[in-house]
Parts: sequence; structure tokens; C-alpha cells
Amino acid sequence: MSIDYRRLLLDMFQAAVNAAAPTLCVPAYLPPRPKGRTVVVGAGKAAASMAAAVEAHWNGPIEGLVVTRYGHGVPCRHIEVVEASHPVPDEAGSNAARRILDKVSGLTADDLVLVLISGGASALLALPPDGITLADKQAVNRALLKCGAHIAEMNAVRKHLSIIKGGRLAVAAAPAQVVTLAISDVPGDDLSVIASGPTVPDASTRSDALAVLAKYGIEIPATVAVHLNDGASDTPTLGDPRLANVVNILVATPQKSLEAAAKVARDAGLATMILGNAIEGEARDVGIVHAGIARQCGDWGQPLEIPCVLISGGETTVTVRGNGRGGRNAEFLLSLGIAADGRNGIWALAADTDGIDGSENNAGAILTPDMLHRAKRTGIDVKTRLADNDAHTVFAALNDLVVTGPTLTNVNDFRAVLVTRRS
Amino acid sequence: MSIDYRRLLLDMFQAAVNAAAPTLCVPAYLPPRPKGRTVVVGAGKAAASMAAAVEAHWNGPIEGLVVTRYGHGVPCRHIEVVEASHPVPDEAGSNAARRILDKVSGLTADDLVLVLISGGASALLALPPDGITLADKQAVNRALLKCGAHIAEMNAVRKHLSIIKGGRLAVAAAPAQVVTLAISDVPGDDLSVIASGPTVPDASTRSDALAVLAKYGIEIPATVAVHLNDGASDTPTLGDPRLANVVNILVATPQKSLEAAAKVARDAGLATMILGNAIEGEARDVGIVHAGIARQCGDWGQPLEIPCVLISGGETTVTVRGNGRGGRNAEFLLSLGIAADGRNGIWALAADTDGIDGSENNAGAILTPDMLHRAKRTGIDVKTRLADNDAHTVFAALNDLVVTGPTLTNVNDFRAVLVTRRS
Repeated sequence: MSIDYRRLLLDMFQAAVNAAAPTLCVPAYLPPRPKGRTVVVGAGKAAASMAAAVEAHWNGPIEGLVVTRYGHGVPCRHIEVVEASHPVPDEAGSNAARRILDKVSGLTADDLVLVLISGGASALLALPPDGITLADKQAVNRALLKCGAHIAEMNAVRKHLSIIKGGRLAVAAAPAQVVTLAISDVPGDDLSVIASGPTVPDASTRSDALAVLAKYGIEIPATVAVHLNDGASDTPTLGDPRLANVVNILVATPQKSLEAAAKVARDAGLATMILGNAIEGEARDVGIVHAGIARQCGDWGQPLEIPCVLISGGETTVTVRGNGRGGRNAEFLLSLGIAADGRNGIWALAADTDGIDGSENNAGAILTPDMLHRAKRTGIDVKTRLADNDAHTVFAALNDLVVTGPTLTNVNDFRAVLVTRRS
Repeated sequence: MSIDYRRLLLDMFQAAVNAAAPTLCVPAYLPPRPKGRTVVVGAGKAAASMAAAVEAHWNGPIEGLVVTRYGHGVPCRHIEVVEASHPVPDEAGSNAARRILDKVSGLTADDLVLVLISGGASALLALPPDGITLADKQAVNRALLKCGAHIAEMNAVRKHLSIIKGGRLAVAAAPAQVVTLAISDVPGDDLSVIASGPTVPDASTRSDALAVLAKYGIEIPATVAVHLNDGASDTPTLGDPRLANVVNILVATPQKSLEAAAKVARDAGLATMILGNAIEGEARDVGIVHAGIARQCGDWGQPLEIPCVLISGGETTVTVRGNGRGGRNAEFLLSLGIAADGRNGIWALAADTDGIDGSENNAGAILTPDMLHRAKRTGIDVKTRLADNDAHTVFAALNDLVVTGPTLTNVNDFRAVLVTRRS
């Protein structure tokens, strides 16, 4: 039996992306047509493609507004698509958020609000309360990031400095029925974390937000202090009757995408293991650890007998120290290839499911067992390239980039390491 | 059923150390008493404890000399124990190496040479050929390290600048029967790599050594050039008749120790998985990856259903950027604890099987699920401590260090991550 491993890896990645593609994952979760109006709102990198998927499968009148990142718009017939800035918010996003709140206001219990949420929605929906400027809000955000506050602490503050997050979008839509379809790109798929949970009860309170700001000694504008001392800034908590008609559904998650990829490999006769859907850490070291596990498969038949595929998701980090063209997935692969050192017939693919690895125009790359050999023949010193954060250059020269263009969805990174033989 | 997880982790570590303890792993591999003399020679951090284990179980006259690291000597009755410098070689080591060659010379086919090898032996047996100074040899070594030569390339040069490595000890002992008992601390347990294989055929040649030096443009003293152009520097290759009476046996390896620890956990009813016996990478990032896999177990029951233990070996790295008291195992654990964030009831133990984590006097530490909580209550900012490479201070303050004293063996690091519940 001869398997085309490059093809298999590409098929696995395609399956992972497809499992999160709005066209394929949104329709199954659409609720029945309501008696009254259907209003679609949403935000995130996949918002426009999700809206298009809704339109394509919706039977009945539909209207609404979604906001997505610049360049991520796709044409919709009935739902307005607005583009705004990400990750740094801009006025286009704030204006869209305000219009979204308007659109869901004044509805009845016979109406349906479909909320389409995906990664990036937090920045795209940045809408501070009256009296607080976007600049004020961002200054507080920056201070929180700088002081090393915990993500739960940051979210407590963020949700109370927004009039759309922390369940407040759902409050604005009450008494209409609210169905939120979410694509998760956060570890743990916590619905209250994805886009700061605009339709999800908030476990934190105003007092929590104030306590966090006090704990880290963060200076806040007077307008922020006034707002946080006002009951009007309260977010709805679990059991709030205004959220009684809300259903939140995860339509795509990193885990679902990894499972889809694993199935492709299993169907091809390979043993598979999902190491984790939220593996983080410095890309090059995550690569070394994956190499270590792959070697164990090749040398000892554990944790898997070969041929096998180790699969992982989650976003790695690149601490830039060089001047090269990188991308965390390319860097992961180059480091993996150096650590594997040609042993065990190791193939791998690492790519961002959104189709863009870092700031390059490729989704990721493929590592072949002969990468080191081909690089050497091409005159490339792989260790020097890695030290210079220049992995993109290596895989480009070897013609091993994976290019998909923007996929208009995002369930984080996809990595598959294939071990084909004993060393 | 209530399991004392701290106790279980300590028992696992003890099992890992015991599996590599000379007292327990050497006796089973002792050959039969020869007709003639029995000469014991050896080098490494475990050399003296291995020699003591041989003496304790040997039936008949025995003599010899082993060299170990300063402070690693244990009293022997018949075998002389010499201490020398590691990792930077000194004259004490060279003198011991010369005396070892003398002791194995002039033997007959009726005699037996027992060679006891363990980690550190390379430096302890540094013995350049006549005419080349230890300083010359070290200069070439440093240049090789600096130019980024591959380990196989470095070994090719090293073996040809030694009169004891690369099989030459066995050549000196011929026609005596040679039995080498080795404790491996190298990834892959390659006998030709452990201590540069003093009784193992050498796959590299003089020409290889010269080619490596030329490739990297390394300046070499004239004495080195003369030596490498002389057939007298040839090492024995596979099939060399002078190695016909040689048997090389791995008595302890990282894998065997991990398997022994896994058995302890399985016997306690936990699912176990050995991720790899040679996992490398920056300690803090290796910790983050282990946390990611542990979370996957807790959240998704994969790759293992809980309760379970993930086990790994191999040596991580710490890039020192702060001024704290570290140790790579403590740093691994602190990072793991921060990444796990109290989720999944994660316990862990990481320790060096030699009993010394970095330059501290502890073997490692234990991470408990309430570590972050207790650290906070004690006024410790864990993230600041991690940034300062100060993990030892954290675990010392929490009374969670694992202290064993030197174990007089070494099969690298031992890590076990226990996941006890869903998050």
C-alpha cells in the first residue's frame, strides 16, 4: 500500500477547515422560521460568510447587519455587511455595534434574532457606554494587558465597559427569541469568552470590575469610575429573565475540526491521536515537543504504533528576535524538522485554519522527511533561518507552502505530524 | 477510592530512579566469572556506584579502576575510585583514562574486562593522543560547538582525537572478553554515542573528521592535523576482529525508568501514557504543552480518560533571562501550573533522576492543584517569579521541593502529569 502523505495531510487540513466553514456548519443549526421578523446580526472574521450561509438556507424574509474585518466581507443580498478594524477597534466597528443594538430593539416575542459570532468579534463590537470614549476604553484595556491581569479579570472589566457584551445584546433583543451561532477560537470554547459573550449571562459584576482596577492600581478616567458606580452598567447574570429566550450554540470549534481531520487519517488506515485542541507555547519549542512524541512513536510504538498521526490545535506564539519572514506555523514546522533530524519518516502540516499564517499570504506549510536534505542542497542553512524567524523563506524556497487564501472562518491553528516508519 | 496523589507521584519517581539504580539494575547483567582475571574499568557519574554494585555481587577476585565526578565517589573494597572534573575535563580525568588503558592491556582471552559506563563519561575520559594537549583538544571542541556542527559531526572529530573512545578501549583490551554495562542518558540510547562508545565500533573515519573540520573552516593546531593524517588514529569499524569478544549491554535507560513509573501508576488504577523518553525544548514551553495535553484529557477524555498520568523523559533547556533560583524541572512545573490555571485537578512531579535539578540541592518539585492559590496567599506573584527564572523559590516557599540527594545514577529528567478530574 502506498499512501501519498502530502495529499493525506492536505486532505486532513481541508477537512478541518470544512468542519468550520460557515457554508457547511451553519445550516444544520438554523432554527425554525419565526412567526414574526427574522433579524440577523453578528460580528467576527467569519460574520459575513456566516450571514451568506444563513441567507442561502433561509426560507422567508430576513434582514440585518453584520460587521467583519476589512477584507473579509462577502456579498449578501438581504443582510448588510460592514467592514471594520481588527484587532485595534475603530469608529466603523463602534458605529456598526450601535446600529446592531438599534436593529434588535423593539422586537416582540414572535421575532427571532440570529446572532452570528466568530473570532475577532470583541474588537469589531467595541462600543463603550455614552460618556466614555473609545480611546478611554482602549487605555484601560492596554493598562490591564500591561499589568498582567488574568483573562477572567480583563473580561470582567471589558464587559462592564461595553453596552453590547456580557449578555447585553440579548437584553437589548428581549423579548425576542435569540439564537446565537458561534464559531469558537478560544481555548475551552467558553461561550462567555467568545466575543465577550454578547448573549451569555455574565458571571462577573460591577464590583468585580472595580476590584480588578483597584488591585492593579490602574488609573481610570472619571467617566469610567462614574459608569462603574452606576447600576445601569450591570450585566445580566445567570437566571436573568431577560435571557430566558436565548439559545447559544457552538457550530464550529477547534475540537470538531481536529476530529474531522482525524477521521480522514483513520479512514486512510493510520492510528490517530488528538494531543490537545488548545496547545500553546513558543512555536519552536512546541515543534521540538511534537518531534519528541513523534520519535517515541517511531522508536517505541507509543503512544501510537506507526503509521500514525499526532494532531493538535491551539495558537502558538512566536517571540520575534530575528528579521525574517515567519508565521508561527512555518516556524513550528522548521523547528520540528530540525529536531526530528530526518528520523522516522516524519511528515507534518501546520497551518492557520483562517488561511493566513501570521502576516504572510500562506496558510502554513508542509514538512517532508527530506526537508533538511533539500534545504542543504538549495544552500539554505536551516538553523540560521530559524534563528532569524525566517521559516517562511525556507518553505517558500522548497515550494512547500500551503496556500488557501482567507477561508473566512477561524478555529485556530491545525497541526498534524505523521510518523511513517521506524528510525 | 481516595488516592494520595502526592504519594503516588513520589512513588513513581522512586520507581524511575530505582530502575536506573546500579544496586538494582547492574547485578542482573553480570557475566559469568571468567577463567582468568576480572578487571573492572569505567567512567561516569554512576561509575563508583556501579562498581560497588559489581563488587557486592561478584563471586571471585576482582580489581580495577573507575573514574567519577567529584563528589560522586562511593567506597569500594577492590576497585579503585578516582574523582575528576565534569563537564570541563581536567588532568585527573586524563590520568585516570591513561591508567584504565594500562589496566586493560596485556590481558588474555581468558580474562574479562567489565566496562561500566554512564552519563558524563565523555568528559571524565578525555584523553588526547600523545602530542596533542588537552587544551588543543578542548579548543577544537569549543570551535565545533560554536559553529553549530551536528552531533554526529562533533562525535566524528571527538572520537578521532581520543585514544580511548570510538571503540579504542575495546581494542586495547583485546583479546580479553569485554562486557560493557551502560546507563544511557542520551536520546535514542545509541551505544556509540554514550560516552562516545569506548567499546563500540565507530561508523566515522579519519577522513570524516577532517571533512567536518574543513567544512566549518575550523583552525586546528598542526599536531591535530598530523594526528588525523596518520593511520594510527583510525578507530575500529563494524566487523573489526579486535571487537569480536565485545558485548555492550544497556542496563538502564530513560525508557526503562519511565516504564517502571508507568507501572506504579497503572497498578494504582490510573491510565498512563509515555509521551516520549527524549522530550526536549525550553522548559517553560514544554510545561505549557504538557498543560495543553492534560487539559485535553480533562475536557475530552483524550488522549486518555481521567484519572490518568502523562509521563515524559528527556532534558529540557532553560534560557536564563532572570536572576532567580531555577532548575529546569522547577521551571517546567511552575509554567505548567500557570498554564493549567487550577483546572482539571492537575498534579505533577518533575525531577532529575540524578537527584540534582540544575545547580540547586533538590531533585525537583511537586505541583499541586492548589499551587496558584497557596502561592497567592503566601504573597508570591508566580508570573513574576517565572519571568525571573525563580521557580525554585516558589516551590521552596510552598514546601513542595522533592529532595533526594545525589542518586548516583542518571537517566535524565522524569516528568509525570496527573489529571484527576474534569474541569
